[in-house]
Order: sequence, then structure tokens, then C-alpha cells
Amino acid sequence: MYKINDNYLKLPGSYLFSTIAKKVNAFTATNPDKKIIRLGIGDVTQPLSPSIIKRLHEAVDEMAARETFKGYAPDLGYEFLRSAIAKNDYEARGAKIGIDEIFISDGAKSDSGNIGDIFAKDNKIAVCDPVYPVYVDTNAMAGRTGDYDSANSRWTNVIYMPCLEENGFAPQLPEQVPDIIYLCFPNNPTGATITKDELQKWVDYALANNAVIIYDAAYEAYISEENVPHTIYECDGARKCAIEIRSFSKNAGFTGTRLGFTVVPKDIVCDGVMLNSLWARRHGTKFNGAPYIIQAAGAACYTPEGKQEIRELVGYYMQNAKTILEGLKEAGFTVSGGVNAPYIWLKTDGMTSWEFFDYLLNEANVVGTPGSGFGPAGEGYFRLTAFGTHENTVEAIDRIKKLRA
Amino acid sequence: MYKINDNYLKLPGSYLFSTIAKKVNAFTATNPDKKIIRLGIGDVTQPLSPSIIKRLHEAVDEMAARETFKGYAPDLGYEFLRSAIAKNDYEARGAKIGIDEIFISDGAKSDSGNIGDIFAKDNKIAVCDPVYPVYVDTNAMAGRTGDYDSANSRWTNVIYMPCLEENGFAPQLPEQVPDIIYLCFPNNPTGATITKDELQKWVDYALANNAVIIYDAAYEAYISEENVPHTIYECDGARKCAIEIRSFSKNAGFTGTRLGFTVVPKDIVCDGVMLNSLWARRHGTKFNGAPYIIQAAGAACYTPEGKQEIRELVGYYMQNAKTILEGLKEAGFTVSGGVNAPYIWLKTDGMTSWEFFDYLLNEANVVGTPGSGFGPAGEGYFRLTAFGTHENTVEAIDRIKKLRA
Repeated sequence: MYKINDNYLKLPGSYLFSTIAKKVNAFTATNPDKKIIRLGIGDVTQPLSPSIIKRLHEAVDEMAARETFKGYAPDLGYEFLRSAIAKNDYEARGAKIGIDEIFISDGAKSDSGNIGDIFAKDNKIAVCDPVYPVYVDTNAMAGRTGDYDSANSRWTNVIYMPCLEENGFAPQLPEQVPDIIYLCFPNNPTGATITKDELQKWVDYALANNAVIIYDAAYEAYISEENVPHTIYECDGARKCAIEIRSFSKNAGFTGTRLGFTVVPKDIVCDGVMLNSLWARRHGTKFNGAPYIIQAAGAACYTPEGKQEIRELVGYYMQNAKTILEGLKEAGFTVSGGVNAPYIWLKTDGMTSWEFFDYLLNEANVVGTPGSGFGPAGEGYFRLTAFGTHENTVEAIDRIKKLRA
Repeated sequence: MYKINDNYLKLPGSYLFSTIAKKVNAFTATNPDKKIIRLGIGDVTQPLSPSIIKRLHEAVDEMAARETFKGYAPDLGYEFLRSAIAKNDYEARGAKIGIDEIFISDGAKSDSGNIGDIFAKDNKIAVCDPVYPVYVDTNAMAGRTGDYDSANSRWTNVIYMPCLEENGFAPQLPEQVPDIIYLCFPNNPTGATITKDELQKWVDYALANNAVIIYDAAYEAYISEENVPHTIYECDGARKCAIEIRSFSKNAGFTGTRLGFTVVPKDIVCDGVMLNSLWARRHGTKFNGAPYIIQAAGAACYTPEGKQEIRELVGYYMQNAKTILEGLKEAGFTVSGGVNAPYIWLKTDGMTSWEFFDYLLNEANVVGTPGSGFGPAGEGYFRLTAFGTHENTVEAIDRIKKLRA
């Protein structure tokens, strides 16, 4: 008789954004006349830029002729894309990453969920609190997190690193030593960043304790300040302890186009085994590549025109971030983030996060994300994203201001 | 100190097709003047058909305008595609499958590897021998297969169901009862099929023994004979015990375009838990959808024009299958498959499978796949695929005939 993976049954409720979608659908069904503005899920709204569209059309045409048709992609992804990444994302930042250390994927969500496959079940993970739910949920599915304690909304076998107002929403080195450390900077959901010196401390800590860091740099393109590292490989020794996950979703608007990559340096070695080999094996056995036309479009992001367009696109969203940040300050909210990240993190002032969600949905018809959905230390906070249109963002903030007037 | 998933270390050698690629690359490096013909990996060669190309261009244009731009896809995939699948692949075959039982993915390889996530580690799997390597390798990675015994090329905790000449390359019901049964018809690698009555026996067996069937129907479009089931849901009771995996790779030529789907009926319930819910949770947490433009292209396969084009494309490859089947027979080989499947399975007559691989590569510059790469019962067999061009297929068979002349 077959048995299910009962770790799934320990998961509390459904995936955060599915819950939000259901609540919004229910509201829309009973209030069909209301114009909802969505600043909740981190989904982009602006079209793909001209260079990307042009390359997509060309690649589609290549698929239409026998001479240029592409079947299965190379295991790690097309070299034209991996070379562009190695050069632009790493070499240009003083980090040396080989093209056989870069694995093209269908996105950072898949990679950050799947990376756990190459580790033993009995590793102890450390996560920021609040945190992107995928890290914890996928480890829970793998049986790595113990049991869920609904009394304090925490798993019994996870090291939580609270990111609170008093520490500038940056985690402290944990007292209990973890095996796998998840870090995300610029941070989702708080929008906080870390300096290069601070990140170096994490690398040193990981090296000293034989821990591995899963570094999610999906929001790297939003960094506007100096001394904020664009990749963990700017830090000394990171090649020996850090895996980095990247995405095209938030810089080039690929949320519905799907492309990402993961870097696994060959210097990360455990008992004589390179993690690079393990991930290569997983990649080659449980995945069959991102579509050729999407990889071609990804490479267009690294052309001079593509880079300029992406800068403008990121600039568009950062204008929204400014609108939200300044508007909420004027309305009297305590806010952070929004300077090196497309996320604004605000205090809900006496309401729980979900109470504030319902309040904002019902009274202003604005959808955000409850901070508590990202972990217990997110309770009393709320996330708004800069990925709306200018018009909607301005209107949403006006509506929120009126609530407080 | 972090620990790796040492199940990976038990895997013998690298993934089959990676090994082949390395051997071919080495041969090409030392024989740059030789024209290699590849009938090894099941990769298609013909371009995407006009309806699909047209829809891809349209969808790219949709991504270029704010009004029609698409961000994150719905969790299960776009309804326009799931509806087309439910109607054309199931309702038209007399099988009732709801659109919330269909999960759009980036391909059958990912799905057949990932489906194991929702099952406990201590399930015992049964596989055909020979078999598509992904089923076994991914279960080995999950720690479900015991240890690899290189003396007999078998895992200690897997039930092997030999598919040999004497049983028409169809598996017999196993004596030891498995928990999870992998079946693939039309079969990769043997090209064998199963009648509806025979498949019903497997469904009855699964129901009687509380086993679940993972049914890989990636080659369904190649069925040319009557009484061969196109979906397992043509069988009574299959909704209670069978998960079906499908692909756009081999019918519509999507090997480099990436699209597939998995059907998990809500009637499969284990201890009160629907497998559909578990897969939905995995799908929503560790995956973020296939690209919108690819899903749009998938839906074009179900239009009247798309269907006609796909029939022609499949017909093109089946002409190759006939060329190979008849040519090898003339050359004196013992062959099977190739009638309801794009694969031809031949006996290597005294050579091992890898000896025959090297022989064919060196002497005829033709690449095939060693039968032993699919499991120990494949030793002494060899797989050729019908996915080449007409010209190359004819030339490859001529070269092989000359070797035997």
C-alpha cells in the first residue's frame, strides 16, 4: 500500500499568495463595481522591453525553420546566455564565476525550492524572520523543519533570525549554529539591504562553521546605494560556501516569461564531493532546460540596448517605491525599504497583519501582503510592492492617505 | 556542519544521455570530417508548425503591450490550455477529467522526476526493465531504491519487471506487490504498446493492492492501431489509482520549447488525503508556471489547423520509423517497435549494447542509444529513434545496411 509524504500535512494552510488570491476573488465576486489595486504579490505590470520583444520574435522565427530549429538545450543552459551572465553579473563586479558554475533555470522560485534536494534531510536550516515562504515550506516538505507549532507560528527545528526595527531588519549571526543559512538581499519582504562588510561576516561565519549559504539575489537590480554588494561573490571566501540564486523576473519583467539561474561554485566541497556536481546531476535528471526562445530573450537583457531598457524599467518601479515610501510617511506610517528594493515594509499600528489586509482591501480596495505571512516576526507589518503602474500606485497611496485623514 | 544528500553518490555514472553526448563530442573532436547522424536521444528535428509559430508571435506581441502583458500564471496553468486538454485529450476519448485535475508544467521529464516528492520515502517502486532512466534515478536520489548493485546493474530495493522478446516487451504483473508502479505506453525505449484490456488488468491490480500507477503517455500521438489506449483513464477505476503524465515534446516538437502536463484525479485518496491537493501544493510552492507564450502555443496545438499540422508532423516521423523498421529487417536485424511509437528496438546480435554503440558510431557514424542504458534487461538491445530528417534517416539506414552487406 502506497504512502504519501506526510510532511506535506504539517504545512499550515495554503501557500500565502494562494490565500491572498482567494480572498481577493471573494471580495471581487461580492463587489464587482470596486476597482481593486494590487500591490500585494510581487508581480510586475510593465511590458517586456523592445530589445527583448525583438529577440523573442527572432527566436520564434528560428524555431520555424529546420536549419535554425532548436531541440533540447544543453544541460546547464545555452552557453551564449551563461557567458553573458558570467561577464556582466560577475566579472564586471570583480567576481570570478565560470560558465560551468552557472545553471540556467525556469526561475528563482523553482531553484530556491529545488536546491534542498542535494542536501541531507538532517541539516538544520536558519532563515530570516520574516522570510520568503518558499525557503521554509520546501524544507518542511522535505521533512527538515520538525513540526509546526501553531501557538507561536514556528517550526520546532528551524533557527529563526528575527529581522526587526531595532536591528534595521538585518539578521544577527545565530547563537545556535545552522547547517544551511538562507539569506536574501535586497530583502523580500522587508526591502532591507546589507553592506559588503556585513555580508563578509556571514561568509566568514559560514566558513568557520562549515555551513552553506543559499543567497537569494533576485532583487539585485534594485540596488541604488554604494557599498551594497550585488553578489555574494564580492566577499572573500564566498566561492567556498555560497550558492547564489538569481532571477530575470524583477529586473527584466520575466514573472510570466520564466527565467533564472543558480550559481554553484566548484570550490564548495563537502567530504570530497563538489556541490556543483550534485546540482549538475539534479539539473540534468529532473529538469530539461528553459525554452530556447526564453534563453535567447534572457541574453538580450545583456546587450547595450537591453541593459539601458532594464535600467529604465527598474527606474520606473523605483519611482513607485518613492511614491509609496513618501506617501506613507506623510500619512504617518512607520515605513522602511523601498530604496534598494521594490518592497516597502510598514507597521500596521495596532492591527494584526491580516486585520490590516482586510481593512485595506475593504476600505481602500488595495491589496498588499500581510507581514505575518512571511513569519511570526512579520506580525504587525505589511508589505507593499512597487510593481504597479504609476497611475495605480499614486491612486492607491491617495486612497490610503484618505483613510488616515 | 552541513551534509549532502548522499543518495546522489549511489547513482552509477552520469545520466545516460550526458554520457552519450560526451562520447559523441570526443568522436567529433578526433574526426571533424565525419558526418554524424543522430538517432540516439529522442530529440526532434522538424520546425514548429505554422499555427504554433503564429500563436507564439501573437503571444510575444501581447507581452509587448501593457494592456495584454502577462505576469505570473495561475497556479495550475492557464484555463484556456487546461480546457483544451480536458476536451481534446480526455472528453474526446470518453474520459472525464476536470480542469482542476490538470497541472501545466515545463515538461514530462520534470513532472516524472518531481512527482515522487508527494510520496513517502518508504514506498517500493516497480519499473519496467528496460525503462526511461529518470524514473529510477529520481527515486534513487530520494533514497527510495536501496543500493546499486553493479554486479547485476540493479538497485536492491526496486521491483524490476523485465520486458523481453518472449513477452512481447510488455511487463507481467509483479509477484511482489509494489506501492508505486511506473508504466509508459507507447513505451520508451522499446516502442511496445499495450491493449486496453491489458492496461485494465494493471488498473485492477493497482486498485486491489492499493498501489498507485504513474502512467507516462508522452508518446500517445504515435498510436496508429486500434484498441491501444490513448489515456489510462479509458480504463475503469483509473481515476482512483492513476496519475498520467503528458508532453508536447514528441507530438508538437516542443523538446526545446518545453511544455507538458500531469493529471492527478481527485478520486485518488490516501488516508483521507487527495493526491491532487498534495500535487497542487507542490506545484504552487516549488514551481511558478510555464511561460505564458509557451502555454499560448500549447493551446494552438488544439485548434483545427494545429491538430492537422501535428498529425502531419507525427506522420513525417512515422515515415522514418517505417524506413528504419523495414531497412533493419532487410539487413537481417531482429527489430520491434516503430508502429505505435517513434522508437525502434533492435537486437545487437552478440555485441553488448555499448559495444554496438561504439561500433555504429565508429563504423557508420550513426548515434543510437544502448539498450543497457535503460536497465539490465536492455542489454543486447539498441534503440534508434524516428526523430531525424527523412534524408538523414535514409542515409543512416543505408550505412547500417552496408555494414552488414
